[in-house]
Amino acid sequence: MDWLDQIRWDDDGLVPVIAQEYNTGKVLMFAWVNREALALTNETKQATYWSRSRNQLWRKGESSGHTQRVHDIRLDCDEDVVLIVVEQVGGIACHTGRHNCFYRTLADGQWQVDEPIIKNPEDIYKPIA
Amino acid sequence: MDWLDQIRWDDDGLVPVIAQEYNTGKVLMFAWVNREALALTNETKQATYWSRSRNQLWRKGESSGHTQRVHDIRLDCDEDVVLIVVEQVGGIACHTGRHNCFYRTLADGQWQVDEPIIKNPEDIYKPIA
Repeated sequence: MDWLDQIRWDDDGLVPVIAQEYNTGKVLMFAWVNREALALTNETKQATYWSRSRNQLWRKGESSGHTQRVHDIRLDCDEDVVLIVVEQVGGIACHTGRHNCFYRTLADGQWQVDEPIIKNPEDIYKPIA
Repeated sequence: MDWLDQIRWDDDGLVPVIAQEYNTGKVLMFAWVNREALALTNETKQATYWSRSRNQLWRKGESSGHTQRVHDIRLDCDEDVVLIVVEQVGGIACHTGRHNCFYRTLADGQWQVDEPIIKNPEDIYKPIA
């Protein structure tokens, strides 16, 4: 059976994907993939997601340059969640300019930011002149 | 604002949650929480999820004994995914008796198991005599 057929895609043809950093083990981000995105992720070894807001393939880093080189693609016990282990180019996975998207921790009953902005998003996503 | 109100719950009142192991950084499992489950997770420092298949609160380890002691609760940039960092009691997070749920890796176009079964599930989930 094709490895893609073994995945239990949801009614929208998607499954969640967790991206974890290869060298640090940190969880970088959470996204979704459809069949095409996951096939491309494997073929190109560059993380490609499905953007549910834009309804299109989203090659991570296509506008920021912060691509993700894929080391490992893993599947969970229920065959409906994928984990990819990646090298994060530029060390920035989050659109806020931080290393990863989980930059808030719950402390004293409040969400508190404990990850610095590495690069200003305005400098990451420059409009084309 | 209440930290729980800051979360963007989906139409079913749920958000995805990723459980990561405190001492190894390994991703243990993926689940869902509703407001009550996440409040309990924080109050008791024991991971509590929402079971979508059983439609009820699911205190992790309630039948297996493999509870998860919570060290950190984190929120992503879009405020719709939670990451919890936990100590995995018994070193087994997966119902298959393995350390974690992501025990298959894609190699040579096939999903290949690379995590051993630590304890037979039949010995974990013993029927009450």
